[in-house]
Amino acid sequence: MGRNEPGGYGNQWTPPTYTVDGDGKVVGGYAPREPNNWGRWGPDDQRGTQNLIGPQERVAAAGLVRTGKVFSLALPIAPDAPSLSSRPRPMITPLMTGSDAVVGSPYNEAAPGFQWSDDMLQMPTQGSTQWDALGHVMFEDSMYNGWWAGNTTTLGRGRVLGIDHQRESFVGRGVLVDAARSQGLECCPDQQAIGPELLDAALASQGVDLRPGDMLLVRTGYLAKWWTRPPEMSPEEYFGATPGISRDAVPWLHEHGVSALACDNIGVELLVPEDPEDRVLPLHVACLVDLGLTLGELWDLEALAEDCAQDGVYEFLLVAPPLYLPGGMGTPLNPIALK
Amino acid sequence: MGRNEPGGYGNQWTPPTYTVDGDGKVVGGYAPREPNNWGRWGPDDQRGTQNLIGPQERVAAAGLVRTGKVFSLALPIAPDAPSLSSRPRPMITPLMTGSDAVVGSPYNEAAPGFQWSDDMLQMPTQGSTQWDALGHVMFEDSMYNGWWAGNTTTLGRGRVLGIDHQRESFVGRGVLVDAARSQGLECCPDQQAIGPELLDAALASQGVDLRPGDMLLVRTGYLAKWWTRPPEMSPEEYFGATPGISRDAVPWLHEHGVSALACDNIGVELLVPEDPEDRVLPLHVACLVDLGLTLGELWDLEALAEDCAQDGVYEFLLVAPPLYLPGGMGTPLNPIALK
Amino acid sequence: MGRNEPGGYGNQWTPPTYTVDGDGKVVGGYAPREPNNWGRWGPDDQRGTQNLIGPQERVAAAGLVRTGKVFSLALPIAPDAPSLSSRPRPMITPLMTGSDAVVGSPYNEAAPGFQWSDDMLQMPTQGSTQWDALGHVMFEDSMYNGWWAGNTTTLGRGRVLGIDHQRESFVGRGVLVDAARSQGLECCPDQQAIGPELLDAALASQGVDLRPGDMLLVRTGYLAKWWTRPPEMSPEEYFGATPGISRDAVPWLHEHGVSALACDNIGVELLVPEDPEDRVLPLHVACLVDLGLTLGELWDLEALAEDCAQDGVYEFLLVAPPLYLPGGMGTPLNPIALK
Amino acid sequence: MGRNEPGGYGNQWTPPTYTVDGDGKVVGGYAPREPNNWGRWGPDDQRGTQNLIGPQERVAAAGLVRTGKVFSLALPIAPDAPSLSSRPRPMITPLMTGSDAVVGSPYNEAAPGFQWSDDMLQMPTQGSTQWDALGHVMFEDSMYNGWWAGNTTTLGRGRVLGIDHQRESFVGRGVLVDAARSQGLECCPDQQAIGPELLDAALASQGVDLRPGDMLLVRTGYLAKWWTRPPEMSPEEYFGATPGISRDAVPWLHEHGVSALACDNIGVELLVPEDPEDRVLPLHVACLVDLGLTLGELWDLEALAEDCAQDGVYEFLLVAPPLYLPGGMGTPLNPIALK
Repeated sequence: MGRNEPGGYGNQWTPPTYTVDGDGKVVGGYAPREPNNWGRWGPDDQRGTQNLIGPQERVAAAGLVRTGKVFSLALPIAPDAPSLSSRPRPMITPLMTGSDAVVGSPYNEAAPGFQWSDDMLQMPTQGSTQWDALGHVMFEDSMYNGWWAGNTTTLGRGRVLGIDHQRESFVGRGVLVDAARSQGLECCPDQQAIGPELLDAALASQGVDLRPGDMLLVRTGYLAKWWTRPPEMSPEEYFGATPGISRDAVPWLHEHGVSALACDNIGVELLVPEDPEDRVLPLHVACLVDLGLTLGELWDLEALAEDCAQDGVYEFLLVAPPLYLPGGMGTPLNPIALK
Repeated sequence: MGRNEPGGYGNQWTPPTYTVDGDGKVVGGYAPREPNNWGRWGPDDQRGTQNLIGPQERVAAAGLVRTGKVFSLALPIAPDAPSLSSRPRPMITPLMTGSDAVVGSPYNEAAPGFQWSDDMLQMPTQGSTQWDALGHVMFEDSMYNGWWAGNTTTLGRGRVLGIDHQRESFVGRGVLVDAARSQGLECCPDQQAIGPELLDAALASQGVDLRPGDMLLVRTGYLAKWWTRPPEMSPEEYFGATPGISRDAVPWLHEHGVSALACDNIGVELLVPEDPEDRVLPLHVACLVDLGLTLGELWDLEALAEDCAQDGVYEFLLVAPPLYLPGGMGTPLNPIALK
Repeated sequence: MGRNEPGGYGNQWTPPTYTVDGDGKVVGGYAPREPNNWGRWGPDDQRGTQNLIGPQERVAAAGLVRTGKVFSLALPIAPDAPSLSSRPRPMITPLMTGSDAVVGSPYNEAAPGFQWSDDMLQMPTQGSTQWDALGHVMFEDSMYNGWWAGNTTTLGRGRVLGIDHQRESFVGRGVLVDAARSQGLECCPDQQAIGPELLDAALASQGVDLRPGDMLLVRTGYLAKWWTRPPEMSPEEYFGATPGISRDAVPWLHEHGVSALACDNIGVELLVPEDPEDRVLPLHVACLVDLGLTLGELWDLEALAEDCAQDGVYEFLLVAPPLYLPGGMGTPLNPIALK
Repeated sequence: MGRNEPGGYGNQWTPPTYTVDGDGKVVGGYAPREPNNWGRWGPDDQRGTQNLIGPQERVAAAGLVRTGKVFSLALPIAPDAPSLSSRPRPMITPLMTGSDAVVGSPYNEAAPGFQWSDDMLQMPTQGSTQWDALGHVMFEDSMYNGWWAGNTTTLGRGRVLGIDHQRESFVGRGVLVDAARSQGLECCPDQQAIGPELLDAALASQGVDLRPGDMLLVRTGYLAKWWTRPPEMSPEEYFGATPGISRDAVPWLHEHGVSALACDNIGVELLVPEDPEDRVLPLHVACLVDLGLTLGELWDLEALAEDCAQDGVYEFLLVAPPLYLPGGMGTPLNPIALK
């Protein structure tokens, strides 16, 4: 794969036939599939479906806080957390420690008695509970709203569609769909494709409806299996069997005005192809490139889902801002659900 | 300084006279000053004054959302942001780029047309808008609630008082005190010590009162000067002149039940000593070690303060969760104020 | 393990009974076993047995270069190289790339036509072909020549016994002992303890003798098995079965004046205990702490050994300097053998 | 600058007119200037002028070792060392410390008494004493021997011309030209362009000649000024004033068969243009792209030069291997001169 040979990597390369205009957009390249939101919020838009959340939606969402219960939907950022083996592990490395204080480090005792500990964080921006930036995925050298892939470079990072454009996004009504419980299961079956029918049935059984701008959290129950998987199961086998949102849900997501979609699995969608003839990771391409609909992965929905099952309330205020990472192609975060 | 010689570093070391018990607490060591909260929420407490926020406080805080306005209080995580020169700069390094996609990287085109960008984040956990963990500061080998400094080691990190214990904290009522505007200034004077009188006067002029559990955000206006400081001013000179919360405010913070305190400067308090005879960074020691009161630094309060000045409303729902960093001594975050 | 309880970790801690003097040395603590070199080259010595190589030894070693053949003894620094799973993988991350150049990065074309690529290296200092620094191992809070363990802190790193003290060391005569071939084997048997008899026999069969100051390279043949091990074998199983230098060789190394010892395995010695009653990793403690004899691990001796077998010459000029890492507890390197 | 507009960055992009063949080489692109070595050692050559060193040259170089004196030519790898401000500082971060041992870390005392320290190294591969890889510089999307810039990508790194191809290079005769002393100066004048005349005069005054395959070390004396520069001088000012090798020396280097060229400054050549009409960094482009002649920067030649001045011997065995970094665009190293 790569270069000019889809079936296997080759060294040769022929320059593309498109050009790039003065706005950094591809001319004569990829045309988005239907449905899509290219141009819907103007040619400069970098927030996609988060535009569906406005002040009214936020006020209404705050009105959902009735009991004061708070839920963190984040996994611990730790080396043993679920991760593709191709991504480096998160590391927390110390700059100063309490043990240094005890032995009287010349640096730690800046003044009699005063001591401190400090540390560094290093992690892939998609190495734990995360949002994808809209620029995370490209199709045929194009990104959401027509921008060129070449806007994302090594030095300089994402000049467009970085997660920084969303630093005041992801605050609004959240709705949980417990796809596992609504089927009477602890966990959705391996490789189950969760499509519109299953989503509609779950919403109906939960007695909650979707409104434009909602952020949809779908619980498959699969994340919890990471820690109990058999020792001989490789991460790739584990992830390969994940249930996920079907590509058939794309029109449904668009029609309901879903503004963000997060799941308790590695890639929201199935990692095995639903249709080998289709594009690879078709939900990613349709949501991130065509619709500008942000995806969230590795969300820990267990405690929230347990609570929703008990009180029957599946809606809440969701406050899930990204870190303010200029040009970042994703972000770790600690999403907070308030009921 | 260091080892046994307060006036200058010496190589010799005499073991401490205290011991450490089976709970990892110091026996025969530092006794906290008054006021303090050691034991107030039990011997195992690791959340300190955040215990003052309960479900009722959160419901009341959500009720403050009236207009749906949202404010990110985070600085960009970037190498040119304000930082002590002793801390490494944040770095975002790519794992995959759009430019790789354009040239047909053998790794990027996993399947025809599908392409992606990925990156890594590396930064000090206190290298941008942040919370200190309660374990960040120690005094005479002791931490909040009596734990021993030796619980924080290189490998293993913080076995107690890490920021992970606060992953569902920092959700409640926020109150902004605009210490600069309330004095009719764009920025508090250099090295101004903001004490109880100034805080009371500002609250009165703003027409807002404090309630137990409130998170207090104090704007000095000083952060904005970072980007306009003269080129010959070193970071250390800039930080040295910072206005900040006076050590005299400690009893006031305690009496008002302030549950967290964040400022738009590098260290909340002054970096020059108010009293050279006192402990170094006395507010840090009093808040983090004695009171268990979390401090937030480098918060960007400009847009929020501008809005508060316009509508006269200085209270809001604040949702400011840390990353879920096991044993982390601090955390970057993107605090969200909702009005 | 840890703190005061050898049989299992406990939180309690009792301060040590020793003190530390003005030279940073332990008073009333660990006494080195025999043989040892504490004090042999003065109280300030930080180079240990490398003192055995002087100008004469270097001139003589250069005289061994007869054919001009050159051998790199380094493994590639790469994520799939042999490594304990507790150490992070090496990473090479780009700061600038050729693909950026092709797409016309605003940063890459500083001037018409001129373009560049840059990268960062991140790795454990002992994560590939390496030398241990003498400060890498401590026994009962003491290091070589009596220094205290507390001299090595998080901030500040090794104030003594860092690899920087050896930046002009490791240049002299190298002698290869092919422990595998001399037994007529491709690889030494699993967990074979290579003691004085085997070493003497191999030297005799190779027709080479040892002289004071020699750096001894022992080939077990085991490193090559890393890439052909069965997929179900974990790194820990692989390393656990390694053949290695026996603790019984310690007096022999001392008597022969060996100045450094390197092997083609993960830890020079066996990882399973030869005698469960003895200290853990007894060769490490005896060499690094008692003798000040530097150890090298993960050396790739295959091509050199093949050549030695062909021409019957097992001696050569070895130039194996560390990186100049102040306070570093180890170093990656590319050792060069010249015949 | 960048994209299609040499005079200033523009977003538009027109694909290049060349193509890339099945060997990864540019067809219809940059043609190297004279002199050049494209094709001289075959179409697959990735070592350039290091091919000029063969077994005979190495044997002869070893014969230069007469006194056994050894010189490390490396700077300490440390945050305060000379570095472009655009490159991150080197960092050594601990994975385990002696202070952890003293406080009884549960991780450090794997067994009674046994303790260790470990650390990580992070640095730009060109952030201290270094070699450039031949792939480090490109001109108009082409590298040495005709390879395409697009062979160097973020994931995958350098598929050609990485420093790993040189892991058995840089062992041979070294010759020092002390350009400062030969002019009777402690340091060459600011911005002095060291051309063929000055080089010839220095060689003559030193009584040493060049032979094909020699590695040439030129001392300007400028590196030592880093630590004594006035506090108000920025790194960029310091580097801007550096003396360096003139672009006029290119034919001279080629004719003399110089196989590598290293200096005690940041970029070997001048950083200010000798001729604003010429290419940027013309010596870099000529040496790395056209000639395949490796450059070394930030070499510490002080002690070696002092010794050469004393004994009048300016030739030596130089052993300066890179780390074995697959695809690395440069390498830190500790070059060893043996006299």
